[in-house]
Amino acid sequence: MSTTTDKVIRCKAAVAWEAGKPLVIEEVEVAPPQKMEVRIKILFTSLCHTDVYFWEAKGQNPVFPRILGHEAGGVVESVGEGVTDLQPGDHVLPVFTGECKECAHCKSDESNMCDLLRINTDRGVMIHDQTSRFSINGKPIFHFVGTSTFSEYTVVHVGCLAKINPLAPLDKVCILSCGISTGLGATLNVAKPKKGSSVAIFGLGAVGLAAAEGARMAGASRIIGVDINANRFELARKFGVTEFVNPKDYEKPVQEVIAEMTNGGVDRSVECTGHIDAMISAFECVHDGWGVAVLVGVPHKDAVFKTSPMNLLNERTLKGTFFGNYKPRSDIPSVVEMYMNKELELEKFITHEVPFSEINKAFDLMLKGEGLRCIIRMDA
Amino acid sequence: MSTTTDKVIRCKAAVAWEAGKPLVIEEVEVAPPQKMEVRIKILFTSLCHTDVYFWEAKGQNPVFPRILGHEAGGVVESVGEGVTDLQPGDHVLPVFTGECKECAHCKSDESNMCDLLRINTDRGVMIHDQTSRFSINGKPIFHFVGTSTFSEYTVVHVGCLAKINPLAPLDKVCILSCGISTGLGATLNVAKPKKGSSVAIFGLGAVGLAAAEGARMAGASRIIGVDINANRFELARKFGVTEFVNPKDYEKPVQEVIAEMTNGGVDRSVECTGHIDAMISAFECVHDGWGVAVLVGVPHKDAVFKTSPMNLLNERTLKGTFFGNYKPRSDIPSVVEMYMNKELELEKFITHEVPFSEINKAFDLMLKGEGLRCIIRMDA
Ligand SMILES: NC(=O)c1ccc[n+]([C@@H]2O[C@H](COP(=O)([O-])OP(=O)(O)OC[C@H]3O[C@@H](n4cnc5c(N)ncnc54)[C@H](O)[C@@H]3O)[C@@H](O)[C@H]2O)c1
Ligand SMILES: NC(=O)c1ccc[n+]([C@@H]2O[C@H](COP(=O)([O-])OP(=O)(O)OC[C@H]3O[C@@H](n4cnc5c(N)ncnc54)[C@H](O)[C@@H]3O)[C@@H](O)[C@H]2O)c1
Ligand SMILES: [Zn+2]
Ligand SMILES: [Zn+2]
Ligand SMILES: [Zn+2]
Ligand SMILES: [Zn+2]
Repeated sequence: MSTTTDKVIRCKAAVAWEAGKPLVIEEVEVAPPQKMEVRIKILFTSLCHTDVYFWEAKGQNPVFPRILGHEAGGVVESVGEGVTDLQPGDHVLPVFTGECKECAHCKSDESNMCDLLRINTDRGVMIHDQTSRFSINGKPIFHFVGTSTFSEYTVVHVGCLAKINPLAPLDKVCILSCGISTGLGATLNVAKPKKGSSVAIFGLGAVGLAAAEGARMAGASRIIGVDINANRFELARKFGVTEFVNPKDYEKPVQEVIAEMTNGGVDRSVECTGHIDAMISAFECVHDGWGVAVLVGVPHKDAVFKTSPMNLLNERTLKGTFFGNYKPRSDIPSVVEMYMNKELELEKFITHEVPFSEINKAFDLMLKGEGLRCIIRMDA
Repeated sequence: MSTTTDKVIRCKAAVAWEAGKPLVIEEVEVAPPQKMEVRIKILFTSLCHTDVYFWEAKGQNPVFPRILGHEAGGVVESVGEGVTDLQPGDHVLPVFTGECKECAHCKSDESNMCDLLRINTDRGVMIHDQTSRFSINGKPIFHFVGTSTFSEYTVVHVGCLAKINPLAPLDKVCILSCGISTGLGATLNVAKPKKGSSVAIFGLGAVGLAAAEGARMAGASRIIGVDINANRFELARKFGVTEFVNPKDYEKPVQEVIAEMTNGGVDRSVECTGHIDAMISAFECVHDGWGVAVLVGVPHKDAVFKTSPMNLLNERTLKGTFFGNYKPRSDIPSVVEMYMNKELELEKFITHEVPFSEINKAFDLMLKGEGLRCIIRMDA
């Protein structure tokens, strides 16, 4: 048992006081973990678009002051009542969605959408008692998607923690907490391309490139990258993307361009843009008979997916995925092993690194669209 | 070799001379089978909605005079050049779509949409030489979907013939040529409900009831029949349908009614109506996380499928099927075996029987919406 067990920990956290204003490094109090909770020391965290969206709070409910952050790697400091799976010293990745292991979804081998711990972006408190574990001078600071990793210590529900191989370098595998696993799993778990098949990836951000990495790992022979930002194309080569299509270069719909390139359509497509037009194109560009399209991007809330039902009757399949269909506790440890076995390459996703004190630089990089993942070192 | 080999056969056929006018039994000449073709003696045929649609030719291209019919059982009379799989005396079911065994679809284990022999409702000739094998006094009569089973003899491409167990009663298994296999396969091959699961069937015509039969065979514990025609409900009990929903009985969308009945949605749904509203409801009524919806019905050509992409991102799957994903030659013989093994019940689909001379009665019954399948006996 560590000397901090059962005590409030005072540590540094980057607090978002207001929408769109730079985070401020503050000294916060982190209360001990309650029932089914775990307090962890974060060593590395990285920034994902979702942090930026909720920080900007443009289309989103503003919940402030808040500690953002949901991609990270850390070490268990202490555990609350009822936690038997984890103990101090365990290496963990916090995940924005959870696995209670008891609901119908957790018991189904087809779903990872846990009823108890499914992502809730509006909630700023812990589910056990509907209060926050963070405070500054007694005033609560809200949590973010149950993770709040922009803090030296955070409290997370045990169901949202993947216990991983302690030999895995946390400054690399921390990026498996969200976007990279999402894209990778969309391909490996849902699209499931066969060896030698063709795969179109719509959107070559971190999620799309992780989907491309999945296609490379599955042995796809053609990986067609589709993006309206031509700057993405050079980087994408590193991820096994073999051909590029910029929809802006054509008069006709991109699904027709792809059908012509592939004798009727690709075997699989994975949409990682969040734009409804790309979703429709990604579906309509798959081959009849056997094509499977997988939607990953989070769309505008009023978006409507429209297509001719004949595209379905011609034996195409349309699916969506959430967190790449991975169950956080059951499956993420094996994704870490894929990295350890050198099947999965993570280094190429990591384009920047900043010390915690300069976390706002990571926001600037993302806003400028530079790079893929910026690692934030908590000890620096 | 039979005495008719290589000769024109004169026999009776029911000719549709004009859209919507009663068929006329005529003496026709049936030319010998050409390259890759087979001439068969039809013993039993049955009537399907598709025959009626192309006879009415309302939304369809009028192709007359034509010999309709595509659900049947017969015996091979003679084979053309290059046919090695079949010989005179073999029992066969002609199918409106084919399996060349050489194209990408035939080689894929995921598709049955053969490039060479895929259904073509506008073509009234054989693909070998673009002419008809039927004539009356030398004037050609058009074929229908490569089968034209409303004739004592017909010529069919070898790729559109399933060679079946000669012990199987053709007056029963003839209905496996089209609608029944379509509904059955939609459930067994595409929706794949697990034992104990819940399945919603939209549309309780022959196709929908065959889908229900598939759900019963798969061990579904709840089979919810949905139809706007309440008369269908009584018959449906025989097919294992356990509950009924008439969308007209509710103010709210039927997908919400079903979600309430099933704690969030059914595990699987199969749409067999051809109506776009039912297609959308069938998709939206499946449970998030694991639900799979399968579209079977043939929609109006301008229909548009619309849904919120969130319904997909919540891990629902949407698929369509054509002929229940069965490959005619490879798979239909085993469906006949399911009947022979008493796993599949066919008798309950057969509600009427008429002699060939009274074939127009079968049309009347279908137009009145009476019964499911009417067997037409060619020898009577
Ligand atoms: N489902 C999940 O579990 C999950 C998890 C994380 C992220 N996401 C979502 O995945 C999507 C991608 O995330 P990201 O971080 O890689 O984003 P990103 O912004 O870095 O990349 C998106 C890319 O899509 C391109 N794009 C935009 N519109 C396009 C169009 N019409 N056609 C082709 N390309 C287009 C952009 O130019 C950009 O390069 C987002 O919608 C995000 O919310 C989903
Ligand atoms: N895909 C294929 O291979 C294939 C093969 C054969 C038939 N089909 C199609 O399957 C469909 C069904 O064929 P069938 O012969 O059973 O037709 P049918 O007309 O006998 O049955 C359709 C049933 O759907 C009901 N219905 C209509 N609109 C509805 C709605 N909005 N909600 C609920 N129920 C509704 C009708 O009352 C009717 O009972 C047709 O569209 C047909 O073209 C497809
Ligand atoms: Zn759960
Ligand atoms: Zn994220
Ligand atoms: Zn073929
Ligand atoms: Zn039919």
